[in-house]
Amino acid sequence: MPRQRPAANGARLSIRVDLGTGLRIGPGKVALLEAIGATGSISGAARSLGMSYKRAWDLVEELNSGCQQPVVSASPGGRDGGGTRLTETGDRLIHLYREIERMASHASRLQIRALDRMTPAG
Amino acid sequence: MPRQRPAANGARLSIRVDLGTGLRIGPGKVALLEAIGATGSISGAARSLGMSYKRAWDLVEELNSGCQQPVVSASPGGRDGGGTRLTETGDRLIHLYREIERMASHASRLQIRALDRMTPAG
Repeated sequence: MPRQRPAANGARLSIRVDLGTGLRIGPGKVALLEAIGATGSISGAARSLGMSYKRAWDLVEELNSGCQQPVVSASPGGRDGGGTRLTETGDRLIHLYREIERMASHASRLQIRALDRMTPAG
Repeated sequence: MPRQRPAANGARLSIRVDLGTGLRIGPGKVALLEAIGATGSISGAARSLGMSYKRAWDLVEELNSGCQQPVVSASPGGRDGGGTRLTETGDRLIHLYREIERMASHASRLQIRALDRMTPAG
């Protein structure tokens, strides 16, 4: 469930960043990292997004291997064993992506509104 | 084949605009409209993009029914029968989308570069 920012009326901009190495950062991966931060585990994050554990794990692996530093790390376990937490790199990735989204939406808001006005409800 | 604009080193921003009515405008539909403008027909455009005719027709239908005015119209036929050309609405849609892409990429270029630097090659 990608979170999106309203840019005009009901119109919204979605972004994806294709990095030089082939790594793609889009709403799905960022929502997953945010959910890991919120739930403290990959399984909890997967559940909260209605995503399979395997899918969530694959996306995390893709991010870990595509970045210089891993985006998540094992956190020391309490009674229920350890979980997963975001690293500084993971936090930074989320922050930069949301910043890109915010700046992109703001910079193009007039054009997005104009596009929206081309529809019957716009 | 979505055309994309470089934002930093090899990094690129892709955008999609979700309009209030549910119509989604992304790189695929815009590339199709541009190809119709270039080839003068839906079949020629589909061929040039490696897309099935049915898929191209469905996308054009989606755009036509989602906008207040159709994005393409039949053009009077010469010896080979008529083709398809972009309407003013179609032209405007392409123009606005490419503007949004340009302004979004420009506004977020520093953050995109910072994201790219998180990868081994960045």
